[in-house]
Amino acid sequence: VDPALVDLIGEAARLGDKSVIMAALEDLHPADASDALEQLEPELFGDVVALLGADLSSDILIELRNEYRNDAVDLLPDTSIAEALRALDSDDAAAILEGLSEGRRTDVLETLEAGDRTALERAMDFDEETAGRLMQREFVAAPEFWTVGHTVDHARASGDDLPDHFFEIYVVDPGFQVKGAVPLATLLRTPRDVRLAEIMNDIEAEITTDMDQEEVAFLFQKYHLASAPVVDEGRRITGMITVDDMVDVIQSENTEDLLALSGVSKADGSDTVWDSVKARAPWLGINLGTAFLASAIISIFEPALDRLVALAILMPVVAALGGNAGSQALTVAVRAIAEREMEGAATRRAVRREILTGIANGVIFAVGVGLVTMFWFRNAVLAFTIAVAILVTFTLGCLFGVLVPIVLKRLGADPAVASSVFVLTTTDIVAFASFLGLATLILIH
Amino acid sequence: VDPALVDLIGEAARLGDKSVIMAALEDLHPADASDALEQLEPELFGDVVALLGADLSSDILIELRNEYRNDAVDLLPDTSIAEALRALDSDDAAAILEGLSEGRRTDVLETLEAGDRTALERAMDFDEETAGRLMQREFVAAPEFWTVGHTVDHARASGDDLPDHFFEIYVVDPGFQVKGAVPLATLLRTPRDVRLAEIMNDIEAEITTDMDQEEVAFLFQKYHLASAPVVDEGRRITGMITVDDMVDVIQSENTEDLLALSGVSKADGSDTVWDSVKARAPWLGINLGTAFLASAIISIFEPALDRLVALAILMPVVAALGGNAGSQALTVAVRAIAEREMEGAATRRAVRREILTGIANGVIFAVGVGLVTMFWFRNAVLAFTIAVAILVTFTLGCLFGVLVPIVLKRLGADPAVASSVFVLTTTDIVAFASFLGLATLILIH
Repeated sequence: VDPALVDLIGEAARLGDKSVIMAALEDLHPADASDALEQLEPELFGDVVALLGADLSSDILIELRNEYRNDAVDLLPDTSIAEALRALDSDDAAAILEGLSEGRRTDVLETLEAGDRTALERAMDFDEETAGRLMQREFVAAPEFWTVGHTVDHARASGDDLPDHFFEIYVVDPGFQVKGAVPLATLLRTPRDVRLAEIMNDIEAEITTDMDQEEVAFLFQKYHLASAPVVDEGRRITGMITVDDMVDVIQSENTEDLLALSGVSKADGSDTVWDSVKARAPWLGINLGTAFLASAIISIFEPALDRLVALAILMPVVAALGGNAGSQALTVAVRAIAEREMEGAATRRAVRREILTGIANGVIFAVGVGLVTMFWFRNAVLAFTIAVAILVTFTLGCLFGVLVPIVLKRLGADPAVASSVFVLTTTDIVAFASFLGLATLILIH
Repeated sequence: VDPALVDLIGEAARLGDKSVIMAALEDLHPADASDALEQLEPELFGDVVALLGADLSSDILIELRNEYRNDAVDLLPDTSIAEALRALDSDDAAAILEGLSEGRRTDVLETLEAGDRTALERAMDFDEETAGRLMQREFVAAPEFWTVGHTVDHARASGDDLPDHFFEIYVVDPGFQVKGAVPLATLLRTPRDVRLAEIMNDIEAEITTDMDQEEVAFLFQKYHLASAPVVDEGRRITGMITVDDMVDVIQSENTEDLLALSGVSKADGSDTVWDSVKARAPWLGINLGTAFLASAIISIFEPALDRLVALAILMPVVAALGGNAGSQALTVAVRAIAEREMEGAATRRAVRREILTGIANGVIFAVGVGLVTMFWFRNAVLAFTIAVAILVTFTLGCLFGVLVPIVLKRLGADPAVASSVFVLTTTDIVAFASFLGLATLILIH
């Protein structure tokens, strides 16, 4: 988005000139309009929303990132929100409702007609991050015995009653169970007298309303789906999920893993300092405990440190390199689990590979660190001690790096959350204990 | 995939029973069939490919992950590969060619008809990871003056000449410049006598053949595209990109960032120990240098360490917590850059927020670490010293955490690659220098 346009909107907001803002937004794609609004200073963003009120298009509202959308919804009157809910597909409407407080949600829902209200209430009954919550109730279905010609004529007669975007027609039996899907491209190229049952594809992935969004996104990715039907416990079609929503899910699941591995619970461009502190302090707090645990281990070897200051100078090398080797194994394992490459025999293979990689890199860096130490301190026994400590720390670091996420996953936890703290604490403790312990045995006595 | 099926295929491969393998694969979706093959022991995978030869369907071949596909292609005769290239869309064919050595590529291309060969050679002329390489040359275009009815009749008459999958028809002028797109859903619901020019959407994102795949994926995500036309330097349509390919790009770009932040250059479930060592040793090597750099800093303060062993015991606490605070800031910044939330005024805001977050968490953990130290060592001056060191390290850690990726990005480098090493080295040095330096000033003199 052109920064000049953002400035123009900001200036208009300061002057309270609604018509300039509307004119500026009108020419933009809703995704660009929402970008422009997000780039305003926070107070001006609020001013624009307050000025526009009901004239803030629902297409722009739904394009705003969660944080901005929730701020906007707080500023809009109930009637504007109700109007937006009516204009949007049910999945987008549910996303807007999620940002409202319980009480306000009831108020807004009450202003809707009974049909719209029930549909939205049912959508909100599904858990967050499930297929039921993400699906839209607008889809196109046809019976098996319809011909291509009949289907096309029917669609044309329905016109605006059809959803805005859809990529396939679901073929259903009289009990509304899905028998297959006919992509629109297939419909287009097939003669009018062919029946849908003859040209429909199998449904590769049966998506149920209670399926986790991560699982749904995985199925979309695996089978290259553009859209998929969602079925209820009686296997009747109740909604449709489209790939654009899954692209967002894939992005947000990836972000979750990335942040979790660094001990950040969430992050957004609009975060305040207070948001950042809240998202990071808990993990730092745990790290405070584990860091002092490592210190306690070091303190066991106080006599050695007292006798040979070189140990204090070198011990961070073992911890830093060992921690790095463990983090590498951890990240590789978290990625493999996320991409479903860690199943069955692959798990055993991965654990074996990590142990051997730990040993191989351990040997390489034991030699490297040993040589530098030899060159620096002219002490062969010290060099041998640190070399052994590096090999031990690398091997155990890689082993824990791959085991921690596997165990977390088996326990039903997120393999990325908390695993860094586990692995780094382990490598620190192993590093200090092996280096200082060995030094105590060999060098000091 | 059912593990029993994988075992069955493995057993058949051992016995050389091709028909059993073919029967087992036939019933599966190609994505599941490729999964089953990837779960075999590596030697058995090779046996299956060799047994199947030309009967290994191109749909399965293209579903295999890169590493497996390249292995398979090495085992297949030229004629089988040529047949697969003919059967696949041009983007998939290019992906297969990428796995061949230069010489073999020429041999295989020579067995194709001139038309197919030229098309593929042109695809391979585009750089890897650009729109030109990712696009398929199969798309559907129609002139502006065609009516819906004419377009539908024409598509039906073309039948099998149309691409297997497409979601929209591109409307072009006589010079093949793209004027707009008509989604198939729109085509379906519009009366036959309406002209395409009246119902076409604007093309929101102009994708050129030389555009980086990351940029293309971003446009797909932003504008919720199912497919988009790709134009050449003369703005003529030359191909089409579909969202399923972009889902793969989004996943792989995310993976790249995740791995880069942990100092792993690449990773795959099929990696050997040697692959892992190659992908990780270089970063460990750099880390070896930076770790000894930190040791050199520590050695400056040898007299202090000699006098007060508590300093050696506590110094890893400052380094561990400060490194964690810096990594958090780094990861948040890398994510924000990847999601284009770090542009213009947002950059200034983010830097300010990180400094303030560093100070806020710095104060909290300075107090926490100070209290634990006080309680443990009963030394108020030592507690004060470590508290100040924590505050300094947190503040600079957060500042460097956000600045390093911004600077790398401005220099045209990948903000995720190498930034961890920079940030952790800085926090280590700041941690040791501030804690031991301050201790030398206050405690030792």
